[in-house]
Amino acid sequence: MDKVDLAERFARIDEHWSPRIVAAVNDYDVKVVKVQGAFPWHTHDATDELFLVVDGRLTLEVEGAEPLVLEPGQMAVVPRGRPHRPLAESETQILLLEPRGTRNTGDADPSGTIGEWLE
Amino acid sequence: MDKVDLAERFARIDEHWSPRIVAAVNDYDVKVVKVQGAFPWHTHDATDELFLVVDGRLTLEVEGAEPLVLEPGQMAVVPRGRPHRPLAESETQILLLEPRGTRNTGDADPSGTIGEWLE
Repeated sequence: MDKVDLAERFARIDEHWSPRIVAAVNDYDVKVVKVQGAFPWHTHDATDELFLVVDGRLTLEVEGAEPLVLEPGQMAVVPRGRPHRPLAESETQILLLEPRGTRNTGDADPSGTIGEWLE
Repeated sequence: MDKVDLAERFARIDEHWSPRIVAAVNDYDVKVVKVQGAFPWHTHDATDELFLVVDGRLTLEVEGAEPLVLEPGQMAVVPRGRPHRPLAESETQILLLEPRGTRNTGDADPSGTIGEWLE
């Protein structure tokens, strides 16, 4: 059984919008990702997606809702089927939870990634 | 879509070992719990269980492994079927992730709780 230190994992990431898997709970993956700027709008038809901000500030734009601004220690769940895009003015560290195989660009765009393990 | 502020949720909890649900991702629940002292040994036969320490210090005793000490920003996943007990010398705040309906005392002991929503 391994201890995962989030700060240590984030320190090893030098790309934005490139999620890395740090833990697995059954068939769900916990991912960490550094973001800056705006990600393309996308939708996950089959799954909710949890965003927890660890450092920085994340804006979640979600179709049909007011933008949500998340600071460290704050989280939100984007419901399945709802178009959304995350954006951050300055570099922001996020923890994601989603079913194994979820692609960061959503269902319609195969250019995205599901993320590699960062042991 | 709601923003969940973990510090605000923890501030409203005045019991130890009483998990409260703060978010749902498909059929998984994100729970927060304040702990102090030692919890009984137990096992979840059908599911892994994620522990993320938000404040304080948690020791995870797991059968067949060295105890794991987790500090804020550190997490670990107890594999399904592995007897374990969490303990904390002083009050500690933890985030848990597990499938809906998971009981804090494990499968063999119906005296435990699955936790109520803390909206």
